[in-house]
This record gives sequence, C-alpha cells and structure tokens, in this order.
Amino acid sequence: MNQLNPPSRLLMGPGPSNAAPEVLRAMSTPLLGHLDPAFLHIMNETMDLLRTVYQTDNKVTLAMSGTGSAGMETLFVNLVEPDDKVIICVNGLFGHRMVDVASRCGAEVIEVHAPWGEIIQPEDVKRTLSKHPEVKLVGIVHAETSTGVKQPLDEISTIVHEHDALLVADMVTSLGGSPTEIDKIGVDAAYSGTQKCLSIPPGLAPVTLNDRAVEVISNRKTKVQSWYLDLSMIQNYWSDERFYHHTAPISMIYALREGLRLIVDEGLENVYARHERYGRALQAGLEALGLELVVKNAQHRLCQLTSVKVPEGFDEANGRKYLLDEYGLEFGGGLGELKGKAWRIGLMGYNANWRNVTFALAALENSLRTQGLEVNQGAGIAAAQSALQNL
Amino acid sequence: MNQLNPPSRLLMGPGPSNAAPEVLRAMSTPLLGHLDPAFLHIMNETMDLLRTVYQTDNKVTLAMSGTGSAGMETLFVNLVEPDDKVIICVNGLFGHRMVDVASRCGAEVIEVHAPWGEIIQPEDVKRTLSKHPEVKLVGIVHAETSTGVKQPLDEISTIVHEHDALLVADMVTSLGGSPTEIDKIGVDAAYSGTQKCLSIPPGLAPVTLNDRAVEVISNRKTKVQSWYLDLSMIQNYWSDERFYHHTAPISMIYALREGLRLIVDEGLENVYARHERYGRALQAGLEALGLELVVKNAQHRLCQLTSVKVPEGFDEANGRKYLLDEYGLEFGGGLGELKGKAWRIGLMGYNANWRNVTFALAALENSLRTQGLEVNQGAGIAAAQSALQNL
Repeated sequence: MNQLNPPSRLLMGPGPSNAAPEVLRAMSTPLLGHLDPAFLHIMNETMDLLRTVYQTDNKVTLAMSGTGSAGMETLFVNLVEPDDKVIICVNGLFGHRMVDVASRCGAEVIEVHAPWGEIIQPEDVKRTLSKHPEVKLVGIVHAETSTGVKQPLDEISTIVHEHDALLVADMVTSLGGSPTEIDKIGVDAAYSGTQKCLSIPPGLAPVTLNDRAVEVISNRKTKVQSWYLDLSMIQNYWSDERFYHHTAPISMIYALREGLRLIVDEGLENVYARHERYGRALQAGLEALGLELVVKNAQHRLCQLTSVKVPEGFDEANGRKYLLDEYGLEFGGGLGELKGKAWRIGLMGYNANWRNVTFALAALENSLRTQGLEVNQGAGIAAAQSALQNL
Repeated sequence: MNQLNPPSRLLMGPGPSNAAPEVLRAMSTPLLGHLDPAFLHIMNETMDLLRTVYQTDNKVTLAMSGTGSAGMETLFVNLVEPDDKVIICVNGLFGHRMVDVASRCGAEVIEVHAPWGEIIQPEDVKRTLSKHPEVKLVGIVHAETSTGVKQPLDEISTIVHEHDALLVADMVTSLGGSPTEIDKIGVDAAYSGTQKCLSIPPGLAPVTLNDRAVEVISNRKTKVQSWYLDLSMIQNYWSDERFYHHTAPISMIYALREGLRLIVDEGLENVYARHERYGRALQAGLEALGLELVVKNAQHRLCQLTSVKVPEGFDEANGRKYLLDEYGLEFGGGLGELKGKAWRIGLMGYNANWRNVTFALAALENSLRTQGLEVNQGAGIAAAQSALQNL
C-alpha cells in the first residue's frame, strides 16, 4: 500500500477547519511519556493558555481525550445524577444532541425550543424555570453549528442563577472565534472542540468548570457512569497530583498548546476582530449574490460560521461536489431540518482571512453559474470588499 | 511563549512508545473533512488494515475516538445492560479497571483472581462459570501491561463458549506485538490502543466485534448509556451509510493508517518474530545483570513489555530519574502492588530493535552502579547477544 497522500483541501465547512502550519508541525513532534516532567510542564502551559482563551480563572480547565461531543458528554455525566431535572434549550441539531446525552445520564429533560435559525428567548427559559424550580442545570448552545446562530447568554445566565441552577454552555464553535467570557457572564461549565476556531485537528474537548460546578460534582451521591470521562479522576492527573488515569493523547495536546499559543500571541481582541471582519464581509458577499442567509437577524449571526440557503432549483449536493472536485473547496451541507436546503460556510481560526473570502465567493459564483442560475457577475466580491471598508 | 520544543526521549516504558517516523510525518499531513470521499477511502483502508493486524474478518473493526481505556469502556457500555452478570479476570491493574468500568455500567461483577505476575487459570474460570451459568460475558486481559503477563486464551475461550457467554479481551499491549488471532481463538470482542506496538501516538482505540457480539448489542432492551461510545451509531458512520455522528479525529486516523501499513508491509509474522527476538534478548540481559523478572514462568512473559524487580536497597524513583536526565531514556515505574518495586521496560513496535536492547542494558547497568550496586560488568549485553544467537 502507498504512503498516505490525501488531496489538498480548503476546509470552509463547519469544521474541521484547516489546522495552522505551526500546529501541523507540532503534530509531528516526537513523543514524550505522559508522566514525563517535560510533558507535565506542557500540560500546565496548555491549561494556562486555555484559561486565557476561555476568558476564565477556573482552576478546572483542561482538555478531555475525545472530540467536542465527548466534552458535552463529560459535563452531563459528571453534573447529572439519575432523576435530576434539567432544562435543555433546543434551536438546532446540537441542542437535540444535548437532550439525548442528558437523557442517557438518567436526567428528566425539559426542553425549551426556538425555531432553527433563531435564538432562545430568555423569557422562555424564565417561564420554564418558574414552572420547574427544582431544575439542576440549564444547557444551551452558545454557537449553534447547525444554523450559525450566536446565542446571547448574559440575560439567561442571570435567570438561571436566580433559580440557583447551573448554566452549561456548548462553545464548540465559539471558543477562539468570538468572546466566550466564562467568568464575566457566569457560565458554570462549558465544553468545546479543537477543530473549529482553534485551528487544530479534531480530537480534544477543552472543558472548563467553576467552583460551583465542581462542588456539585463533589456532592454526588452516585458514581459517575463513565470511567473514561470521570472528571474527578482526570483532574487528579491534570493537577499537581499527576495521578495516572489514562495515557494522554500526547500529540493532540502538543497541537492544542501550539494552537492556543498562536491565538494568545495574536491577541484575543485581534482574533475576534478578524473573525468579525471577514465573516461580515462574506455575509455581505453572499447576499449580493442574491442568496438568503438562514439567520435573519444580523445581530444573531456568527461570523465564523454562516448558513446560507440553497437557491430554488439548485442541486445542493452536486453544487458541493463541484466545489470539492474543481477547487478542493469544502462547504458543509445542511443538517436536520436544513438538510439539502443550506450550505454552512466556515471562516474559522487560521482560515478567517480575505483570501479565503474572495476565493469562496468566486468559486461559489461559478458553481451557481454551472447550474444555469443567473448571477450578478462579480457582485459578491465587490460587496464583500465594500463591507470590509465600512466595518 | 516559545514554540513547542520538547526534549528527545527514547520511550522504553509501557507506552506511549516512540512513534515511527512515517507515522509522525502522517500526523502533520493537512486535514480532510470527515465526510470527504477521500477521507472515507482512508477510513476503509484503515479498517482493512486493522482486520489484518487483529487477524480477523470481523466487519465491525474500527477505531474509537479515544485512548485504549475508551475502547474498554466502549465494549462494556455496549455489551452490558444493568443487572447483567459478568465475570472479570483480575491479575493486574487493568483487570481491576475492567471491574470498575463494568460496575459503572450496572453489571453485577464476579471476579476471578490470580496473583500479579501469573496467568488466570482456565479451571478457575470454568468453576466460576459453572456456579454462575447465566453470566453474559467474561472479560480478560490478553497482555497485562502492569505485570508483563501474556495470557493464553485458547482454553478459556472454549470454556466461555461452552457456557454460551462472550469472551471480551483487552489487547492494548498485544495488538501488533504478539499474535491476537481473534477469529482462530474465538475472541468475541477486543479493544486496543495505538501507543504500544502500533508505533502510533496515543489517542485512538481500535475495537473489533464478531457477529455474536454485534447481535447482543442489537438485542439490547435499554439505550447505551454513552452517546459518544454508542457503537451502533458509530458503525453507521464507519459503514457505507456514512451517517454523521461526531467529527472524526482526522490526523489520528491518518497516523493509524500509516502505522498499520508499516506492520502489514513488514509482515505480521516478521513483526511478531522481531518482538520475540529482542524481548527475549533483553530478558536474558536483565537476568545476567542479576535482576529478577516479575513473571517467573518464561512462557507467560510478554516480549514487548518486561517487568523487572528493583534490587534491594536501590532507590527506584531516583534510578528512573537518572535514566531520564542522563540518557533521555524512559522506563515505566510499577503500578498498584508493584509501585516502587518494579520497572516496566517496553520494546514495542518501532522500538523493538537491537540498538535499543544494547543501549537500555548499558544505561541500566550504569544506573545500578551510580547507586553503589555491584554489577557484573558488561554481563547484560553479552548475555543478550548470546540469547539472540541461540533464538
């Protein structure tokens, strides 16, 4: 069999996004043992960097040895005990996933819904909490990767804490792309993935928990149902105890350390501003091409991930295949309610730049044209350029 | 912060072992999307290679997105339902871990014990199964990484199947180092890790299940308690369905494909013989240095991992620190009952070669000397050399 030699791709879907060159170099660094003092030093650096990027001082801020979904499962298996009542907010696929995961932990799940493409309304959370004052936690998606909605958390955090519940947030697509403000907002526990705005391959789930959340775990009456994701044991390995739990995924932690370092070196505010600039420019370009964005309210749109409706009469799957085959360009397809009806276009981390905005708009325009759609020639790029100047 | 720049290490502990250079190169290969046809092709190649190395035709042979321990948890959460009776064989740390994991799935666990450093006796399994004929599965460690015991499985497999139970084997340290013979022995389900004899960084858990095991999962009455490790859903992604579950750890799967390719290119029999040659040579060398091996019966010793007792009056932790600081050489310390009392020396995958045997014996001899032990100068290497010629 031949050596691995995959084709070159520009990954502008919902993740994985392209890893930064420095991160790819780190991935090929020879290994250290998982108890080597030199590796423990790298773990400490990684935790410090992770705190900076999550915008928190939480002691328990570390990377679980699985992908983002393992991060979701980590928080629920540790925070929930059988028959606990939890509220899950659902306005996209990842809210649905949270319901499934929480149910498997034995939770009684109460759902708060909003239409796909819209935010969860704080008053709906408030009403539901008033009806169920014994609720232990409220789970919500900060950046819904299936729709491109950015969920404001401030007001909901206040409501949740008035009811003495925990706020648990999915920050898979927000971490390193838009402000997460764990401490400022009062998010009690959050999880993320590496393959979005951190410019790292998929494989780790950074989580952070504040003292309130850690106390809930300490007060459990039952054993955590997952040995692999048992945070108390894992925290013993990531803390000064250095107590062996499982063999840490060394190379992925190298990559995480490097990806976070690049973000901290660039400066969080600069990184957020870059995502904002190019995301808004892309969105202006898409609208100028006559396309409709899934999220109507511009204030609720993520910059790092934009969902756009497939025009009437256009074969979505063929359109994406054309981009992949002719340009090596990957867009994401729609999920759930949006399957076949939307593309999801990411400008995440290393990929959030003007070159990619221009290229994506040019390639997309051509793809529309190949299926016979009338396109206002060059309008996308011109509008993006103009949006960039006005930002 | 500076770029990542860890010190150079020869990893001769219980894993992670050094990754092969080809594997490290694969780790730095730019990413594909997890639904890209080119990536799906790589997944198919990986499954084929994995079947070859596991020595099985099992359709369900794939890599879970976690380390070896996630593989253990995968098999138990999928095969066990609350109140199922299971037998777990315990003759080292990883048997204990299996008990913990199975209990967290709600299983009623019956333990069969053997002293650390000895194999599980088939008659003990037989007696226990006769007392508990309703037992659903028997879990056993094929290569006990905490002691270096190689467990014969043939006779136990026959006994387990006479009682219509499933045989579940931990092959974390055996896969790619010694014959696993899944189909020939009749192992119903097995799991492994990547960081031992596959010469790949830690981060994936290759599992294989035969039709009997898959049927047990299909007949479940309850939902699998872990969403992340739910094999039916994961199999839908690894099969022609290609149904999105979670974002696969692309780079780690690249690495797995490359590591397995190297093994298949070298030839399974050659790989096993290489581990055998250098493992036996090292063991002869250690004994010639006056050291006592933990596993008394030579037939029950693994070649890829040797546990050796720390001599009376020798400071174990300081000895290991000396090797790491002076030679960049990592040995493993003892676990559990053997903590502070043994070293674990690995010769796994890429590392199983004559250069490493010679170097390890030379460095170890020097380390014994620095703490004032009388050593028969050069006896270790000479005995290893002689053992090599007589093999």
